[in-house]
Amino acid sequence: MAYTDTNNRDKAIEIMESRGVFIEDIAKITHVIQSEYYAELTLEECVRNVMRVLDKTEVQNVIFTGVALDELCEKGLLPEPLSQLVDDDYSLYGVDEILALGIVNVYGSIGFTNFGYVDKQKIGIIGEVDKIGKEEGKCMTFMDDIIGAIAAAAASRIAHNIINKK
Amino acid sequence: MAYTDTNNRDKAIEIMESRGVFIEDIAKITHVIQSEYYAELTLEECVRNVMRVLDKTEVQNVIFTGVALDELCEKGLLPEPLSQLVDDDYSLYGVDEILALGIVNVYGSIGFTNFGYVDKQKIGIIGEVDKIGKEEGKCMTFMDDIIGAIAAAAASRIAHNIINKK
Amino acid sequence: MAYTDTNNRDKAIEIMESRGVFIEDIAKITHVIQSEYYAELTLEECVRNVMRVLDKTEVQNVIFTGVALDELCEKGLLPEPLSQLVDDDYSLYGVDEILALGIVNVYGSIGFTNFGYVDKQKIGIIGEVDKIGKEEGKCMTFMDDIIGAIAAAAASRIAHNIINKK
Amino acid sequence: MAYTDTNNRDKAIEIMESRGVFIEDIAKITHVIQSEYYAELTLEECVRNVMRVLDKTEVQNVIFTGVALDELCEKGLLPEPLSQLVDDDYSLYGVDEILALGIVNVYGSIGFTNFGYVDKQKIGIIGEVDKIGKEEGKCMTFMDDIIGAIAAAAASRIAHNIINKK
Repeated sequence: MAYTDTNNRDKAIEIMESRGVFIEDIAKITHVIQSEYYAELTLEECVRNVMRVLDKTEVQNVIFTGVALDELCEKGLLPEPLSQLVDDDYSLYGVDEILALGIVNVYGSIGFTNFGYVDKQKIGIIGEVDKIGKEEGKCMTFMDDIIGAIAAAAASRIAHNIINKK
Repeated sequence: MAYTDTNNRDKAIEIMESRGVFIEDIAKITHVIQSEYYAELTLEECVRNVMRVLDKTEVQNVIFTGVALDELCEKGLLPEPLSQLVDDDYSLYGVDEILALGIVNVYGSIGFTNFGYVDKQKIGIIGEVDKIGKEEGKCMTFMDDIIGAIAAAAASRIAHNIINKK
Repeated sequence: MAYTDTNNRDKAIEIMESRGVFIEDIAKITHVIQSEYYAELTLEECVRNVMRVLDKTEVQNVIFTGVALDELCEKGLLPEPLSQLVDDDYSLYGVDEILALGIVNVYGSIGFTNFGYVDKQKIGIIGEVDKIGKEEGKCMTFMDDIIGAIAAAAASRIAHNIINKK
Repeated sequence: MAYTDTNNRDKAIEIMESRGVFIEDIAKITHVIQSEYYAELTLEECVRNVMRVLDKTEVQNVIFTGVALDELCEKGLLPEPLSQLVDDDYSLYGVDEILALGIVNVYGSIGFTNFGYVDKQKIGIIGEVDKIGKEEGKCMTFMDDIIGAIAAAAASRIAHNIINKK
C-alpha cells in the first residue's frame, strides 16, 4: 500500500495535536509574519495555507520523524550521547534546524528569513512550546523548529499566491 | 506591475532556447532518471513535468540569474576575479551548485541524488553543453547545473505524483 | 595559476569596502547576536571570527558573485526581467537568500536562525545598506543578505569554539 | 559538562563500527571520487580527511541521530507511520537525504554532485550496506546516505586543500 498525502496529513495533524500544537496556533504565527505586508489577511486564509503546507509528503515526514525523536527522548529510549543532546536542546545539536530547513525549502528560500525571525523571537506557540520543553520529563527540541518552519512556509506560500494573483 | 509566473516561464524557456537548450532535451534526462522505476513513462509526461517545474517563480529566477552570468562572462562584463572563476568553470567556484540547489529544493530532498548523478555522468544535453562551454568565447558554467537541477526536480515531481496516485 | 584563499579573502574585503561595508560593521552584528550568550565577548574576537569566515573559498565566491550582480544592476548591464527583479529587491526573487545560505551553511545549520533574525530586524549596517539600496541608481539586493550571512556564520563559529573549549 | 568534538568523534566512529561501517570503507569511496582528479592521492590521505570531517560537531550529531533511527526501527520502537517509512527506505521519505545534506554542506556545495553520484551508483560499502538494509529485521535507511555524505565531504575537503596548496 502506498501512503496517500491526505491520510498522512491527517495523521501529522493528529500527532501535533497530541503534543498540544494546533493548526490555528501555527496559523497565528503565519498571520504575524504576513499581515505586515497584507493588512487584509485573515486568520482563516492562514489556516488554509498551513493546511496546504501539511499536504506535502516531505513536510509530513519531517513531522513524523521530529516528533518521534522528541517522544523517544521523553521515554528514555534514545541512546547516549543523543539522548542528552536532544533533551538539553543543546545549542550546537543542529539536527532540529536541518530538519526544519527540509520544510522551509519546499516553498523556496524566501522562507528562511521568516523562519529565523519567529524561531529567535519565539513568537506565539513557539514560546509556549519552548517553555514546556524545559520542564522535567518533557522534550520539545524538534517541535519548536517544526512549528516555525511550517509557519514560515505558509507565509511564503501566501506571498507567492498574492503576488501572482495581482 | 507584478510578474506573473506564466509570463516569466515563457521568458525563461525563451532564454534557455537562445542558449541552445530545449525543454525536450531536459525532459530526456528526466526520462533517463525515472524510466528506470516506471517503465511506462513517456517523454510527453516528462515534458509536462518539466513545464510544471518551470512554473515556479524560484526556478525562473535562478534561470534568469545563472544564464545572465554565463552571458555576461562571454561578453567580458564580469569583474575579476569572478570572470576567471566563471569562465574556467573552476571546480571550487560552487555558486553554480548553490543556485542549482535552489531549483532541486523545490520538490524536496529526494532530487539531490538524481541531480548529482546526471551532473557527474553528464547525461544527454548536459554533456553537450559542457563541451560547448569549453570552447573559446563560450561560457556554460551555470547552464549545465541548471539543466541537471530542472531534470532532477521534474523526476522528483513524477515520483511524488505516481506514488500518490496509487 | 590557482587562486589562493588569502589573496581572494583580501580581494573580497576590498570589494565590500568599495561598497561601503567594513569588517568591523559585520563584526558588530556578530557581537549583537553572540554577546547575549557570552557577556565577555569582545568586538575584536568578533572581527577575528569574521576574518576566518572570509578565509573560506565558498564565502569569497558568493561575495564576488553577489556584489557583481548588484553593480551590474546599477550600471544597467543586467538583461530583463532580471534587472527589474534585482533592482526592486523583489520579495519573491529569492536568489539573494539562496546565495546567503551558501555562506551560512559553511558553519552548520545553527546559523540559519541568526541569519533570519538579523536580516528581518535589519540590525546595524544591514539597515543602512538596505536604505542605500532603495536610492535611485543604487542596488544592494545581494549585499544585505551577504552581510547577514557572514555575521551569522561568524556567530556560529564563536558558539562552536567557545563550547568546545569548555 | 560540554561535549568535546574529539570525544564525540570517537563515539561516532564506534557507533558506525558497531553497524559494520569502518573509516577505511568510507575513505575508499572518497578515493574513488578524488583519484580521478589527483592520480597520486593515497588511501591514507583519504582516511585522514574522513577523520577531519568526523571532527565536526554537526557531522557527529547527524550520525548519532541517523543511526539511532535505524536501530530504533530494527527494535520496533518507532511509531507508525514512521516505522514503515524508515523500514521500507521509502523513496519519498526524504529525511535521510535532508540529514545527509547537513553533512555535505559543511564543506560547501561542490560536495552535492559527488554525494548524488556515489549514492545512486552505490559505490563500495554503500552497496553492501544497502543490501544488508533489505534483510529481514535490518534497517540501514540513514546509514547509506550518511556514508555517502561523509565520503563526499572528505572529497570536497581534499579538493579545497590541494588547490589551495598549489
